[in-house]
Amino acid sequence: MTNRIHLITLGVRDMERSRAFYEAMGWERAPYDLDEVTFYQAGDQVLGLYLQDMLDHDTGLSGAKPGGITLAVNQTSREEVEAMLDKVVQAGGSVLAPPKDMPWGYVAYAADPDGHPWEFSHVPTLVPDENGALILPDTLGP
Amino acid sequence: MTNRIHLITLGVRDMERSRAFYEAMGWERAPYDLDEVTFYQAGDQVLGLYLQDMLDHDTGLSGAKPGGITLAVNQTSREEVEAMLDKVVQAGGSVLAPPKDMPWGYVAYAADPDGHPWEFSHVPTLVPDENGALILPDTLGP
Repeated sequence: MTNRIHLITLGVRDMERSRAFYEAMGWERAPYDLDEVTFYQAGDQVLGLYLQDMLDHDTGLSGAKPGGITLAVNQTSREEVEAMLDKVVQAGGSVLAPPKDMPWGYVAYAADPDGHPWEFSHVPTLVPDENGALILPDTLGP
Repeated sequence: MTNRIHLITLGVRDMERSRAFYEAMGWERAPYDLDEVTFYQAGDQVLGLYLQDMLDHDTGLSGAKPGGITLAVNQTSREEVEAMLDKVVQAGGSVLAPPKDMPWGYVAYAADPDGHPWEFSHVPTLVPDENGALILPDTLGP
């Protein structure tokens, strides 16, 4: 289990407005046809925009302002997700949302001592490569 | 100007507690002797812990809960910092803190439409390499 951040997710209130903003900033949207999420490759990492309501729901947080941000570490298996959560608790953090099967993968959220939300997940379409980098695939889906 | 995130900074209330947490999680602290900030290499990127009060002060935000997070894009010159801020404003964002000479470099903060704080800075000791990666040097300082 390497220590790196694969995906930074910003909770946004208006997806179109946020896409327009980031694209005006020069970010190139990955060509996925999704309404509730938008991805941009950022070197070996991915920046995601996700509707704030959905982020609040998924993490169990609510009303985080300004905007929500989660830091994701993608694992190569479900077992690694569970191992990371155990490690969080042992380290003095807390589980925000225990591992759950979502349409895209097996996902858990945990908080560090200040409440910064981290996501630990196993997402079959978004598994880090042999170098630990998360490179967006050409298409998403099962 | 490439689009990538070089440094993720978490605002923390108790540095010792947070160091203990992240190190229990397996992160290896960079060997810098600084009280108010802690760095960890994370692949081509850096995770930083910074005292929340100082982060509030620097960004002009306050009371951001849970914890503050800033996303930093390190530039290779002061002129690039200014160019990025212009771009933010043109893109519909806003300047939180105009460029300022800090002990470590030339630093500005700006917000996206949801208020997510981004830092644009030119820090001579933390300039991205030819691949755009931010690799922590052996020592910090002028």
